Amino acid sequence: MGRIICAGLGPGDPDLISVRSDRVIRSAQHVAYFRKAGRQGQARRIVDGMLAQGASEYPMEYPVTTEIPFDSPDYNRLLSAFYDDWADRLRGLAMAGHEVVVLCEGDPFFYGSFMHLYIRLRDVVPVEVIPGIPGMVGCWNATGVPITWGDDVLTVLMGTLPEEDLLRYMQTSDALAIMKTGRNLPRVRRALQAAGRLQDAWLIERGTMPGQRMARLADVDAADCPYFAIVLVHGHGRRPVAGGDE
Amino acid sequence: MGRIICAGLGPGDPDLISVRSDRVIRSAQHVAYFRKAGRQGQARRIVDGMLAQGASEYPMEYPVTTEIPFDSPDYNRLLSAFYDDWADRLRGLAMAGHEVVVLCEGDPFFYGSFMHLYIRLRDVVPVEVIPGIPGMVGCWNATGVPITWGDDVLTVLMGTLPEEDLLRYMQTSDALAIMKTGRNLPRVRRALQAAGRLQDAWLIERGTMPGQRMARLADVDAADCPYFAIVLVHGHGRRPVAGGDE
Repeated sequence: MGRIICAGLGPGDPDLISVRSDRVIRSAQHVAYFRKAGRQGQARRIVDGMLAQGASEYPMEYPVTTEIPFDSPDYNRLLSAFYDDWADRLRGLAMAGHEVVVLCEGDPFFYGSFMHLYIRLRDVVPVEVIPGIPGMVGCWNATGVPITWGDDVLTVLMGTLPEEDLLRYMQTSDALAIMKTGRNLPRVRRALQAAGRLQDAWLIERGTMPGQRMARLADVDAADCPYFAIVLVHGHGRRPVAGGDE
Repeated sequence: MGRIICAGLGPGDPDLISVRSDRVIRSAQHVAYFRKAGRQGQARRIVDGMLAQGASEYPMEYPVTTEIPFDSPDYNRLLSAFYDDWADRLRGLAMAGHEVVVLCEGDPFFYGSFMHLYIRLRDVVPVEVIPGIPGMVGCWNATGVPITWGDDVLTVLMGTLPEEDLLRYMQTSDALAIMKTGRNLPRVRRALQAAGRLQDAWLIERGTMPGQRMARLADVDAADCPYFAIVLVHGHGRRPVAGGDE
């Protein structure tokens, strides 16, 4: 019996992969990763130059990404069949004695696609998951400013949430990390404005990767909605932790 | 001119340190780390066996930890003088041409003590910060269950917050990570109970480290308040991401 190892890749810079993931990726004979059809894919790009000679690659191409609404029955059916299919194939490889490394951006257990394979595989073959630095952690490090101090509350939000939900969380949390922005960015921006926090918001695109871009969200053109971007609002410390610090 | 490099250590398992931090730590000639007086210290323990022969070590011993209330003027004054003093010493080393590696558990910009040195040093000597896997990420990986799915909201709370604040956040967030538990654990437990979430809460002590312990918080004796522990409540996905998954 082989096994499945999901290797968290961290935020994008290959130098920020953990020592364990790095070792597992470099020695893998079977490497699988998600990507949009016709693209190289972010996960595969991160490990460029790291894979062993002759390693077999298994690009798992989403049958759909943003072409149809993600809450439609069609979307659910297509994705579910896709995960079923790949879970079968990976299980087959593991049961044939192979060790298969599945690449996963960020941390696999933090909004990762791997969890859909994980719940299908964990009871039938051995599965190991190696944590990674989440993308948002790479982004807040890129800003050069600590995200949380003292007793700050940090809330992680998806840009797909309804505007009134976004607003409520933005009003009550000290620090904010907002993911899945892209086409949702105008709604995120309106909610930040209504919460009085737009001036403190940063947009970080391709954090820790080549082409990293960072700007105050208020200075970004409203029509500019990069897909791979995170919005951050830093906390400032609920109470002084050391006199005169904040 | 030398420089200061803060190396994020991740959650505790040295195998989960990033490739870059690992390289920097192994080649360091000057290594500083925080610790409680008289203890080896968690950061130093994580890098056991990794430091270069002959590396100079600078244990930065907190003048006070939990002996006096952290919101008292005395606490603030003592800590502030402590950070001033060490910022001076590290700056002196950097200005003498040395590269000094400061070890920091988890991610340095996420509730890390290093930020108090960072704000004192960043304008006077070159400072580089290397992100790490936050402790909470190591803890949720240890549970073997994804912390967030789909549009889940994750809120990170400090156990030091007032009970009514804890309760309010616990009622409105899908997933929860509660840090700085220790002597605050009874209050955290009461708030979880009031929010109807105690049965879903896990207590993870020394996540990813030797002696890791994991238990349902409801099953932990009320008098048992481990210092180095995190409480987690997993999200379940706000809407189905793939049919029949959740």
